Amino acid sequence: MFFTSDNAAPVPREVLAALAEANTGYTRGYGTDDLTARVQDRLREILAAPEAVVYLVGTGTAANALALAGFCPPWGAVFCHELAHIAVDECGAPEFFTHGAKLVALPGAHGRLTPDTLRAAISSTGGNVHNVQRGMVSLTNVTEAGTLYSAVETAALAAVARAADLPVHLDGARFANAAAATGALPADLTWRAGVDALSFGGTKNGLMGVEAVVFFDPAKAWEFELRRKRGGHLFSKGRYLAAQMLAMLEGGRWLTWAGHANAMAARLAEGLAALGIGFLHPVEANILFPLWAPGTAARLRAGGAAFYDMPAPLGHESARLVTSWATSEADVDAFLALF
Amino acid sequence: MFFTSDNAAPVPREVLAALAEANTGYTRGYGTDDLTARVQDRLREILAAPEAVVYLVGTGTAANALALAGFCPPWGAVFCHELAHIAVDECGAPEFFTHGAKLVALPGAHGRLTPDTLRAAISSTGGNVHNVQRGMVSLTNVTEAGTLYSAVETAALAAVARAADLPVHLDGARFANAAAATGALPADLTWRAGVDALSFGGTKNGLMGVEAVVFFDPAKAWEFELRRKRGGHLFSKGRYLAAQMLAMLEGGRWLTWAGHANAMAARLAEGLAALGIGFLHPVEANILFPLWAPGTAARLRAGGAAFYDMPAPLGHESARLVTSWATSEADVDAFLALF
Amino acid sequence: MFFTSDNAAPVPREVLAALAEANTGYTRGYGTDDLTARVQDRLREILAAPEAVVYLVGTGTAANALALAGFCPPWGAVFCHELAHIAVDECGAPEFFTHGAKLVALPGAHGRLTPDTLRAAISSTGGNVHNVQRGMVSLTNVTEAGTLYSAVETAALAAVARAADLPVHLDGARFANAAAATGALPADLTWRAGVDALSFGGTKNGLMGVEAVVFFDPAKAWEFELRRKRGGHLFSKGRYLAAQMLAMLEGGRWLTWAGHANAMAARLAEGLAALGIGFLHPVEANILFPLWAPGTAARLRAGGAAFYDMPAPLGHESARLVTSWATSEADVDAFLALF
Amino acid sequence: MFFTSDNAAPVPREVLAALAEANTGYTRGYGTDDLTARVQDRLREILAAPEAVVYLVGTGTAANALALAGFCPPWGAVFCHELAHIAVDECGAPEFFTHGAKLVALPGAHGRLTPDTLRAAISSTGGNVHNVQRGMVSLTNVTEAGTLYSAVETAALAAVARAADLPVHLDGARFANAAAATGALPADLTWRAGVDALSFGGTKNGLMGVEAVVFFDPAKAWEFELRRKRGGHLFSKGRYLAAQMLAMLEGGRWLTWAGHANAMAARLAEGLAALGIGFLHPVEANILFPLWAPGTAARLRAGGAAFYDMPAPLGHESARLVTSWATSEADVDAFLALF
Repeated sequence: MFFTSDNAAPVPREVLAALAEANTGYTRGYGTDDLTARVQDRLREILAAPEAVVYLVGTGTAANALALAGFCPPWGAVFCHELAHIAVDECGAPEFFTHGAKLVALPGAHGRLTPDTLRAAISSTGGNVHNVQRGMVSLTNVTEAGTLYSAVETAALAAVARAADLPVHLDGARFANAAAATGALPADLTWRAGVDALSFGGTKNGLMGVEAVVFFDPAKAWEFELRRKRGGHLFSKGRYLAAQMLAMLEGGRWLTWAGHANAMAARLAEGLAALGIGFLHPVEANILFPLWAPGTAARLRAGGAAFYDMPAPLGHESARLVTSWATSEADVDAFLALF
Repeated sequence: MFFTSDNAAPVPREVLAALAEANTGYTRGYGTDDLTARVQDRLREILAAPEAVVYLVGTGTAANALALAGFCPPWGAVFCHELAHIAVDECGAPEFFTHGAKLVALPGAHGRLTPDTLRAAISSTGGNVHNVQRGMVSLTNVTEAGTLYSAVETAALAAVARAADLPVHLDGARFANAAAATGALPADLTWRAGVDALSFGGTKNGLMGVEAVVFFDPAKAWEFELRRKRGGHLFSKGRYLAAQMLAMLEGGRWLTWAGHANAMAARLAEGLAALGIGFLHPVEANILFPLWAPGTAARLRAGGAAFYDMPAPLGHESARLVTSWATSEADVDAFLALF
Repeated sequence: MFFTSDNAAPVPREVLAALAEANTGYTRGYGTDDLTARVQDRLREILAAPEAVVYLVGTGTAANALALAGFCPPWGAVFCHELAHIAVDECGAPEFFTHGAKLVALPGAHGRLTPDTLRAAISSTGGNVHNVQRGMVSLTNVTEAGTLYSAVETAALAAVARAADLPVHLDGARFANAAAATGALPADLTWRAGVDALSFGGTKNGLMGVEAVVFFDPAKAWEFELRRKRGGHLFSKGRYLAAQMLAMLEGGRWLTWAGHANAMAARLAEGLAALGIGFLHPVEANILFPLWAPGTAARLRAGGAAFYDMPAPLGHESARLVTSWATSEADVDAFLALF
Repeated sequence: MFFTSDNAAPVPREVLAALAEANTGYTRGYGTDDLTARVQDRLREILAAPEAVVYLVGTGTAANALALAGFCPPWGAVFCHELAHIAVDECGAPEFFTHGAKLVALPGAHGRLTPDTLRAAISSTGGNVHNVQRGMVSLTNVTEAGTLYSAVETAALAAVARAADLPVHLDGARFANAAAATGALPADLTWRAGVDALSFGGTKNGLMGVEAVVFFDPAKAWEFELRRKRGGHLFSKGRYLAAQMLAMLEGGRWLTWAGHANAMAARLAEGLAALGIGFLHPVEANILFPLWAPGTAARLRAGGAAFYDMPAPLGHESARLVTSWATSEADVDAFLALF
């Protein structure tokens, strides 16, 4: 009954097996090894993006901040949702890697930006030397509210960016959950919709600490490599990141694992709804924000459940529950049984 | 016969075993897990530094750059050897993390700084608003030339820094090799000698990508944690870094592994010397710079050996050979047999 | 009838005379000249702050950004009003000079922050390593809406900052107008109220381009000097900045000039009010935001008036009018005659 | 007998007159005024560069650092002479404005780089992700040793940069002295030789604190404007910088003033040589480094002379003497009479 975060879970045995298998003989260093090349190929294939450049880093914050820095100048504004991880959970990493860009945090119901809000924010920014300039747009899918952007919604937002000549980044720390939940093609959720750079998450989906950064246009590859090295994010033993990512990508496991997490969230949501419990946000992937009666959290914790509290409207309590590849039906049912 | 770098080797089976063992159940995230706490305790014990703060990161460049940033202001000069990794191999990471400090790269035979050179450089820096100011000193042990600083030599250099009120960083990417080769107590090579911050290497000594940063004075802990997060170097699943580091620290394995690497280098050096081959630098740890006849490198490579070429005096060829925990006597002997 | 900005006006003849007078003989450079020393003494006297350190720079943006950088770390949040010059009119200079701090722009009627808003923003920031941390508070007096903070209001806001252990910056680009309008002692509007750093404006009050930065605690002096030099803001010929500032400070001219600007704004406000015209914000210093009928701006411009348009509620037009030391009663009356 | 620096002198009366003349009526702000436009035209004319963009800033450090930042990325190396102002006298301003570029300071007799030294330094830099990359070349004319680059020498150095696809910056804090001394066309000393960005000095040649930055290719104009604003170097009252610069450019005064300074240096050099005094560097413009007998400096100072001491070979004393537009023959002769 551990629902604090999808990064609290262990890793699937396939990941350990892949590490063991990769652990033979000598390899070239710094991401020039064969396993890294295989990951890159595999991810290009999954994304139907044969020209894309793919890099592995160790954390989602690194992936996001490096991706943003590849596009947004120091005097640029990054338009994002006010709940975005880059805006509230990275201790200013985007500002650090971009050398001072300004995050413009926009409201939007259930963690989602709307084209109108985005358009208005862009058009009221820049245009003279006194203001920061329009820099780029960063979306998050699955959103921090546990909701989704469909391919069509992504394209609508990217079109607003495009109209202002702005590149688009997608924070896909839970991209697998988004792909599994929407059933959309990875390409349709990214480059075909107008996304230029993707943080493709592995850690929350079962890896020890591996994320991919994908640039759909290879022109920025070399600059990215320099920024990555300079940021201390180039691993000498690339094979151990690659082996994990490959274990996740092979055989569609990335979707299987994320799909399982989503299914467990759905089971939990149904169970809670059956108990008359509502939600702050629609449950669309693997994160739930139940809205329950005061006192509930304490009772659940006394029963052994772990999760984070969330601010709630007066007279309610709220929490954040996250499921993962490791969540079992038994976990869910035991949690529900606490009510 | 793979001598390109100690980071080209696989990891010992104990590391994989530790990962497997760590892979059970849920844990708290972001370095607040029990395994991380155990690593911290163990390293404090090894360093006889009960007050020290210990952090795990994924790369040596991150460890170095974050350690420097913790002490050196943007307008500071970092005094280091001209071969130092921070000066030539990190694509400006120290400049990035310190927000623009200037690396003052000093000469010194066999990769070692002397107190006189250091003192002269410090005294000719700073003192008025037009120059960058004296910031800190960074030493490397094992040096990039494969040589060592004894505890006494470290203390002599740190005393020069201290006299100018400058903090001292030690890049110990191969600290285990230095400790094994000198036989000195870790404390004598670090804080007792006057070192304030230590990059304690794991990756070159057999881990997948784990380094520790140690600050002997805990006053800078919180600032470091913010810099680490902001740099994208805080891993959510800390246990997988900690498990590896712990596997290396338990039972003195860190010294055993490094000692083995040193012994293989010594065996190689003896074998080469017996063939009449000299060296650019004394062989004191696990790196060799043989100076051999033109054409040798090509012949060795044809025989299956791998290593990097190095600039050499006219009429010679040179190379860099690095041994590791994984180098076997058979590797060494097969290499020597190629002559 | 030129009301675009107080920086569009020429400078009083006393400023030119002071430059001419200063233009004799050789002087020491880089702010170590006698005139600079006299300015520093004079400003300390005016502020009743004998320990304060005083520096001259060329622009208000430099003054603000350097003052903020002296207090706020790269991972800090600067709490300010959403109209603050540092937030919207400096192209990210604060982010540049602080190496990436985040400006938290807060709402507040008529350009003024309230203690409650400030307290809430501070308390919802920081506290864990994932967020940016509480950095400092920056107030503006005269505000960008042309309103004032009294000494008591300043102290109330500074007390909120103080309670969270945060330093306070005051952007006083129009500090003279605030002092003249409130009649408060400069000390009561600054350090006695809890202000740590003051940008003391000269340019908008009649100088060619000279601002003072005042730190009430001299402990940060040397760091400031390094930041100033590093930012390219240390002038070799300090006498020409000092002479101007001194001309403004001597004989209370700084208050006379600003008081005149305020009086002209009051005359204008009365005239407009008599015409039935209201204002977006109370007219308290030298900036007016009239709210007039659609078509008015075009008519006034046709008559020769110059000013900026401002966003207005539906069915209205608004503008920003700024008076200065150079505005004459005739200017005001001619403008009013256009109605 | 004040020879400490050309920035210790007052300004010519034409500069004060121009300020007075400019001080009428209202103007547009932030460098969009008519006087600024006239300066830009005039400088384009002087440089025979009709497409060039021209900006005014207040200090030479700002001019240099902004110019470098316009071309060199954070991971770039700036190749310059080891005496260059950017390397030793700007407290790290280039590192600050470029966000961390590395200055590669090269030796060279009498303050001059040679093509061979430059070529060797460039070719040993960059090429893989571990090193900083080749960024740009920065030359200084008049050099810090008081020597000159001819148009041909400038072109030879720029050709080396060009061959490596590197842009070239010229620090022309004393460009007027170089132009006057060489008699070369400004275009031949700059863009025709291959210079991309010029810091065109005004302050050392008689202005209060005005420098121009010239980019010969207008493509970088907008980025420069943002960097300038963000650096706090955009003056609201542009007319007062422009008026001064215009006063210096009109009627060839920039060459007259600098030529006078050069002539006074020549007179001084001849006088000293006649006394049997040698020089550390050839006297080619307005800076002299006499090499005289121990005790001389004290004697001269006792006689009322002011200058800086310089390091000298054993058994000698050295000094730096700088002449300016304001140095008179009487000053020179009085100084010589002290011997």
